[in-house]
Amino acid sequence: MTRSERKAYTLREIAERFGGEIVGDPDTRVSQVAALDTAQPETIAFLADERYLQQLKATRAGAVIVGTAGRDATDLPRVVCANPYAYFARVSGLLNPSRQPTHGTHETAIVDDSAVVAANAEIGPLAVVGRNTRVGARCLIGAGCVIGDEVVLGNDVRLHSNVTIYDGCIIGDRVILHSGAVIGADGFGIAMADAGWVKIPQIGRVVIGNDVEVGANTTIDRGAIEDTVIEDGVKLDNQIQVAHNVRIGAHTAIAACAGIAGSAKIGRYCRIGGASGIAGHITIADHVEISAHTIITKSIDKPGTYTGAYPFEANRQWRRNAAQIRHLSDLADRLRALERKLASLERSES
Amino acid sequence: MTRSERKAYTLREIAERFGGEIVGDPDTRVSQVAALDTAQPETIAFLADERYLQQLKATRAGAVIVGTAGRDATDLPRVVCANPYAYFARVSGLLNPSRQPTHGTHETAIVDDSAVVAANAEIGPLAVVGRNTRVGARCLIGAGCVIGDEVVLGNDVRLHSNVTIYDGCIIGDRVILHSGAVIGADGFGIAMADAGWVKIPQIGRVVIGNDVEVGANTTIDRGAIEDTVIEDGVKLDNQIQVAHNVRIGAHTAIAACAGIAGSAKIGRYCRIGGASGIAGHITIADHVEISAHTIITKSIDKPGTYTGAYPFEANRQWRRNAAQIRHLSDLADRLRALERKLASLERSES
Amino acid sequence: MTRSERKAYTLREIAERFGGEIVGDPDTRVSQVAALDTAQPETIAFLADERYLQQLKATRAGAVIVGTAGRDATDLPRVVCANPYAYFARVSGLLNPSRQPTHGTHETAIVDDSAVVAANAEIGPLAVVGRNTRVGARCLIGAGCVIGDEVVLGNDVRLHSNVTIYDGCIIGDRVILHSGAVIGADGFGIAMADAGWVKIPQIGRVVIGNDVEVGANTTIDRGAIEDTVIEDGVKLDNQIQVAHNVRIGAHTAIAACAGIAGSAKIGRYCRIGGASGIAGHITIADHVEISAHTIITKSIDKPGTYTGAYPFEANRQWRRNAAQIRHLSDLADRLRALERKLASLERSES
Repeated sequence: MTRSERKAYTLREIAERFGGEIVGDPDTRVSQVAALDTAQPETIAFLADERYLQQLKATRAGAVIVGTAGRDATDLPRVVCANPYAYFARVSGLLNPSRQPTHGTHETAIVDDSAVVAANAEIGPLAVVGRNTRVGARCLIGAGCVIGDEVVLGNDVRLHSNVTIYDGCIIGDRVILHSGAVIGADGFGIAMADAGWVKIPQIGRVVIGNDVEVGANTTIDRGAIEDTVIEDGVKLDNQIQVAHNVRIGAHTAIAACAGIAGSAKIGRYCRIGGASGIAGHITIADHVEISAHTIITKSIDKPGTYTGAYPFEANRQWRRNAAQIRHLSDLADRLRALERKLASLERSES
Repeated sequence: MTRSERKAYTLREIAERFGGEIVGDPDTRVSQVAALDTAQPETIAFLADERYLQQLKATRAGAVIVGTAGRDATDLPRVVCANPYAYFARVSGLLNPSRQPTHGTHETAIVDDSAVVAANAEIGPLAVVGRNTRVGARCLIGAGCVIGDEVVLGNDVRLHSNVTIYDGCIIGDRVILHSGAVIGADGFGIAMADAGWVKIPQIGRVVIGNDVEVGANTTIDRGAIEDTVIEDGVKLDNQIQVAHNVRIGAHTAIAACAGIAGSAKIGRYCRIGGASGIAGHITIADHVEISAHTIITKSIDKPGTYTGAYPFEANRQWRRNAAQIRHLSDLADRLRALERKLASLERSES
Repeated sequence: MTRSERKAYTLREIAERFGGEIVGDPDTRVSQVAALDTAQPETIAFLADERYLQQLKATRAGAVIVGTAGRDATDLPRVVCANPYAYFARVSGLLNPSRQPTHGTHETAIVDDSAVVAANAEIGPLAVVGRNTRVGARCLIGAGCVIGDEVVLGNDVRLHSNVTIYDGCIIGDRVILHSGAVIGADGFGIAMADAGWVKIPQIGRVVIGNDVEVGANTTIDRGAIEDTVIEDGVKLDNQIQVAHNVRIGAHTAIAACAGIAGSAKIGRYCRIGGASGIAGHITIADHVEISAHTIITKSIDKPGTYTGAYPFEANRQWRRNAAQIRHLSDLADRLRALERKLASLERSES
């Protein structure tokens, strides 16, 4: 959307929608959000972290969003609110509305006769919608998406281009799936027999709740027997792997490249760092934070932050130190022996 | 497939196919597999692990598959066999047969005139089959797949939707490729010259044996000069990266998000954990197990299990302990110095 | 391309293009590159590493490329040059020219009327080109690619099949994008409010310079407010994740499965190992090398090699040693206590 097409709002109109107190001219108009340091006059920026106070002083933004602590930190027209970052998110959503489905079904889309597609949904060019699949109101299906048979898409679902959904999966309302995401591929179920691996048919589904977002090239496997479940409000970044029969609790957010092994149960409101791993068949409590590059190998039953990343160093130092990792147990034994000897020496002294 | 369409089998019919001893009524009919704890009457469950004995007692399954040790652990009609998990896999395959190719070539598929497609293969909507490519008997090519030129697909190959195969790759019989898999992209071959990187054309192919399964969004690069080779019966989970000129030995299974660097040679019957890494140009013996999140930096010539994951802790403890990693070599030096001093002290004592 | 179609060149023709000194018959003809150990007579191989001298002795290649040190290491016709590996890359490029766009726009491609496509570009079957998008001279767009609205592709861009580019992204000249790559998906921008996460619209773009290569299934997210920038000559392997607002400096090469978190700034000429991670909001200097499986958690301001991988061991040894990781801080305390005691003992001795 070009600047000229974008609608501008006054601070008054914004506060009427999202609350907050206006300090300064309520008729100040903004048409886009911006970062403090690169803001232009018709934009609104925000201060969520005291570290950027200097940028607030220097900003060319037309208005800013600040917390109560930042109320008097600027002379600019401002909205004072409890959670400036979330407020900013909402204002940005207002100024950058997502595209509405307006084009109906493209003539090159292949929609099975048995599929039920809401009249106000949009099916993009070269998309495929399978047998008995249901596409809810105002859904927007991007070009090249392939949606299997017996799939249910709720209302206001947005599939960006080239998404794949296997047969039988259930997707809630207002779900966003980014390009290259694959929902419902077979879980990794194999049994070793004499002659080699035997495939175990994966007969569960993927069930995704409402308000879930799934990043580009993320994969969520269908369940082996029961379903894989992604609860409401879960946010998954790019290139995450969710194995069969995982359950991810509501409002948990997972950063890119994380891997969740089979049948792991993750609580609600967890925050899981990038490239971290959750072992199979374990349970993670609600409100757990896991640091990037950490593998969780057993269940966690208490909220808190958990970490297991190897500290990096200049390679030469790393070589020296890492070599000792392989002697740690010996080192501990030798230390214990020394302690004993010294104690006996001290006894003999006294 | 809905329950009503699904065929039911008696235990007698099952044992006639797959062997095992029936204890209880051989006319017991089952139409689906189930987990012990959620089983319904017309299903068959299995016990492969003594830990679930309690679930066996309580199960509502109509029949169960047990090992010889579990022969008398239940009164339910049962099949007693040597390997209940593999037996279960086979029964599930019987009850959940994969879809057969019945639709021929979809009118929107783009099949080059020079391609040779078996009459009983199915090419899905909007799939592309390149020049001189051969598609074997009973292949099932999903919607949106792009198969390049000079590709060979064996018989009974299943490509789920949106798979990409580059020119010249060879795929064996009964291979399954899941959505988003990319077979034969260029390996990462670049040479630094004065002006920047020079690309090295990747002129090898990917050659995949029989009975291989490749997970969603997994990538297998073509060889730089020689081929990248995936031997028979290899099972690759999702989002695995196989670099150029890798060879993966027969019946090796690799869990999701693992990365195999260029020219690594992996043995047969290995089991490689999720998010693990194999360095380039190394060799892994047969029957090696590698734990999740472990990087193997040099060749392994003996079977066994190898691990290198940093143990996770509450972040506060991790901080304290990880800080010492950077002093490990010093710590070891100081320990040695103490040992020497104490020894000399002891000598002077005596 | 089959052998019979491939053009052969004499060493003289090659040296006229790429320099170097010919030793032996300059009329020696080669039609393909090869590895020393599997070379055939009409091929040219190279020696870049003294370790392969033995292979050089035994090679059946028709000619070889050697460095000045290898000048007399063989009697074969040879090109002597400063950088045999880069020379080899160029010769291979000469012998294996990439396919030229010759087919124009396929009748099944969906190109918006407002798109501007160079007459000599090729748009493959079932590709989609959006509104106001520009496709430069000699571009080759593979089958199934989806290019959004307002995208700019420079000249000589090669998109392999099934690439996705979101609206508004800018791609330079001679860029190669491999299958499954997703350029410009939303960055992971969410703000926690009382009711759950609020999405932050991602209004920046992805801007990719000239001569960039992006591997299969790699994802580069659009910026939150400003752009994500990939500078000239950057080479990205497969399955890399580049988060919003990252900047990757010119001629940096990143191996597969690496993840770069939001707003990280990476210098020029860096080499970043596979499955490594760069934390958000940090800065990496030019000419930094990062080892595979290493996470960089704070800025690096000096060139050098940095490592942080946990050394692998046989699982039994790992268990013993890793258990001590959780006592490292205690261990260090106990060592210090011992040192103090011993010092006081020594004082009391003297």
